[in-house]
Amino acid sequence: MSKPKLPRGVRDFGTTVTAKRNLIIDTIRDVFRKFGFEQLETPAIESLDVLTGKYGEEGDQLIFKILNSGDYLDKVPREELLNLSSKALTPKISEKALRYDLTVPFARYVTMNRHQLTFPFKRYQIQPVWRADRPQKGRYREFYQCDADVIGTSGLICEAEMVLMIAEVLDRLGISDFTIYINNRKILSGIAAYLGYDDYVETICVAVDKFDKIGREGVVQELKNRGIAEKDAERLMHLLQTEGDNAARLSHLAAALQEQEEGAQGVEEINTVIRHLDAMQGRLDSLVFEPSLARGLSYYTGAIFEVKVNNVSIGSISGGGRYDDLTSVFGLPDVSGVGISFGLDRVYDVMENLGLFQEDKIISTQVLVTNFDENTQTEGLKYLNQLRKAGIKAEIYPVYTAKMKKQFAYADHKNIPYVLIIGHEELESGSLSLKNMKTGSQSKMHIEGVIASLQ
Amino acid sequence: MSKPKLPRGVRDFGTTVTAKRNLIIDTIRDVFRKFGFEQLETPAIESLDVLTGKYGEEGDQLIFKILNSGDYLDKVPREELLNLSSKALTPKISEKALRYDLTVPFARYVTMNRHQLTFPFKRYQIQPVWRADRPQKGRYREFYQCDADVIGTSGLICEAEMVLMIAEVLDRLGISDFTIYINNRKILSGIAAYLGYDDYVETICVAVDKFDKIGREGVVQELKNRGIAEKDAERLMHLLQTEGDNAARLSHLAAALQEQEEGAQGVEEINTVIRHLDAMQGRLDSLVFEPSLARGLSYYTGAIFEVKVNNVSIGSISGGGRYDDLTSVFGLPDVSGVGISFGLDRVYDVMENLGLFQEDKIISTQVLVTNFDENTQTEGLKYLNQLRKAGIKAEIYPVYTAKMKKQFAYADHKNIPYVLIIGHEELESGSLSLKNMKTGSQSKMHIEGVIASLQ
Repeated sequence: MSKPKLPRGVRDFGTTVTAKRNLIIDTIRDVFRKFGFEQLETPAIESLDVLTGKYGEEGDQLIFKILNSGDYLDKVPREELLNLSSKALTPKISEKALRYDLTVPFARYVTMNRHQLTFPFKRYQIQPVWRADRPQKGRYREFYQCDADVIGTSGLICEAEMVLMIAEVLDRLGISDFTIYINNRKILSGIAAYLGYDDYVETICVAVDKFDKIGREGVVQELKNRGIAEKDAERLMHLLQTEGDNAARLSHLAAALQEQEEGAQGVEEINTVIRHLDAMQGRLDSLVFEPSLARGLSYYTGAIFEVKVNNVSIGSISGGGRYDDLTSVFGLPDVSGVGISFGLDRVYDVMENLGLFQEDKIISTQVLVTNFDENTQTEGLKYLNQLRKAGIKAEIYPVYTAKMKKQFAYADHKNIPYVLIIGHEELESGSLSLKNMKTGSQSKMHIEGVIASLQ
Repeated sequence: MSKPKLPRGVRDFGTTVTAKRNLIIDTIRDVFRKFGFEQLETPAIESLDVLTGKYGEEGDQLIFKILNSGDYLDKVPREELLNLSSKALTPKISEKALRYDLTVPFARYVTMNRHQLTFPFKRYQIQPVWRADRPQKGRYREFYQCDADVIGTSGLICEAEMVLMIAEVLDRLGISDFTIYINNRKILSGIAAYLGYDDYVETICVAVDKFDKIGREGVVQELKNRGIAEKDAERLMHLLQTEGDNAARLSHLAAALQEQEEGAQGVEEINTVIRHLDAMQGRLDSLVFEPSLARGLSYYTGAIFEVKVNNVSIGSISGGGRYDDLTSVFGLPDVSGVGISFGLDRVYDVMENLGLFQEDKIISTQVLVTNFDENTQTEGLKYLNQLRKAGIKAEIYPVYTAKMKKQFAYADHKNIPYVLIIGHEELESGSLSLKNMKTGSQSKMHIEGVIASLQ
């Protein structure tokens, strides 16, 4: 083969992009740790039956299946082969699959290790996931998720801490203008019950979730199509689109839902989260109670979050919520938890968009030592050793036979800010030339001076 | 399903194990960066034809293949299905596969991006790889490799820096008693030529590589079986098993190989690497020239390395070498490079074995704030905020309804070294109790004192 290619929808991350991605990952990791979350890693490869049936029928089709090793056809009778569809053959020749998200593996892990774990269990997980989706702008087949979950407690302090963590991550990354939308599934259930549509909660969530895309009229139309009377759909929208600040909206809904226990509880939970945030000096000005926030995923049962960067049209960069029944599918019922997830690609795009990657934070090598004959090479190696001993990221051009121009071009391309020049004169005097690659200015000094000015 | 399981040969890494693994990864990353290496990430999923044919026939069988999405049987005529073996069917239903190592994806990346990259290109890569090997003790189907390579230069400073990086990683991890074995493939070629077996270099390398396992007699026997006369095999072993220190062994071989240009060059290259190391104060006492070191991989053409921890029987924990032709298989000839790789699992096992994981380095949360009613909870949240603002990793038990005993047990299980107690008395006086969980001692102080003693 002469022209190797990448499969569609997956990416190489070159050194500059990886440095920027690391900046985001390290920040997220650091914040998660500060809040007492510990890292878990699960394997890329899961049993196919652990993943199947967890993401809906459409999701199942997007799971990457791994072909069994060895003579995988051995166990499939040949005559059967003729009549099997691809879908029917898959479970006979594939037992393993690639992780589709971090949530299901987390639920599996918690279930399998429930007797060893201490609850509440606070874990974070930053790993790639794979989906056989049709690749398009901003949608990839391999991408990182950055999740933090607390499982085994219904304490609402956890919700407050999720909000704090989101705000701290974004603040540290320099993303200052954002909104954290919060709602509670119980409020949506309460409203459904209040309107006499107890059995339509799922339908309502799915329709309301599309508000951003299809607008109020579109949602009303969809609700009508799904069997909700137009006047009730209008009443629903009226309740969801209350005016005023968080307090006003919450008391408006509290009044409307006072007879609906679940709905009232939803309002009360949000009030509690806000009270906890207040005690911890959380940025309440960035938190918006949004009763029309629904989120598509069916497993949420309490608080739900979604985070958007204001004035940047890149959808939500983080989201999450509380679930009461995540592990029951694996045989462990009644374990409540709450989690958030950052989409690494989205955060990256926002930062590029806002020009937030500071060049000096993604610099790798600080200084390149040049050399042009055996003597300057040997001397250069000695200086290099001194620089590194002082904790300075340094390298030497690996052959002295390369022209100076080439050595400087190397520093330039690699964005190395300083070049150390050792000439014959310098060899004798011990005084070196340090060139600032940005300004072009050059200063003479001894190695101690070089170290001091680079530290 | 009620009892979820992991596929054979893959692992969950719980929080403590992940913390320890991170310690190793962060150290390796830090050292690589200090030497001017930048991180590259390639996707887990590669085109099957990028991987096939690079690892020998046996290797090809160990590549995990991914089933095509959708109706993958659509393009396979049903009557053909009846006659196809598993092996013949695979390329018809699978176009993608999981990365088997980091070297081939690196070669692919360099080839695809040769016009954008600056050479010499120094990259490191720390990612998992997958092999459908039969799982056994210490052998997994998913494991991390930590590679650093310089490509696009034949400068021997790179070899010296590989040795320095290995030593610095191990030093920083506390692994002080190790040996870095070095040899050069040109010496082995030279010896083969010297004995009149120019065409047997590969055979000799494969046989000599087994020295540790089958001993001198075994190697001689294998060489005989492969067509080398017994007396020549004995002469070969005699040359490889020279006595004395590095200098003595090198001059002995230099004398023997003076008429063999390639062999002489191999000796000279090692002398140069040693000279470079000397200039950079490299730990030459840990470097052993070992002419019988061969390494199995066929792509090495110059220096080869292997690292063993003395007095720990866990094979080699790192290795590498120079290759002159890695990218030619993708259509980019004549690019020389040199690289090393750390096996994360091996390093981990060595550190466990030697008890080198220091507990205080893998602590996540430094202090747990307890609470037992609404007042202490609200007050606790305020203190928590102050602690975190001061950069202290802190958490609060998320519900005040849990018994104190339970809250302490949580701190205990999670290895949290301090617990902050806020009682009614404390609420009024502002004086808190900080309990040291190891010693059991308890001190009264204000929050400023708590912060100072935890920082």
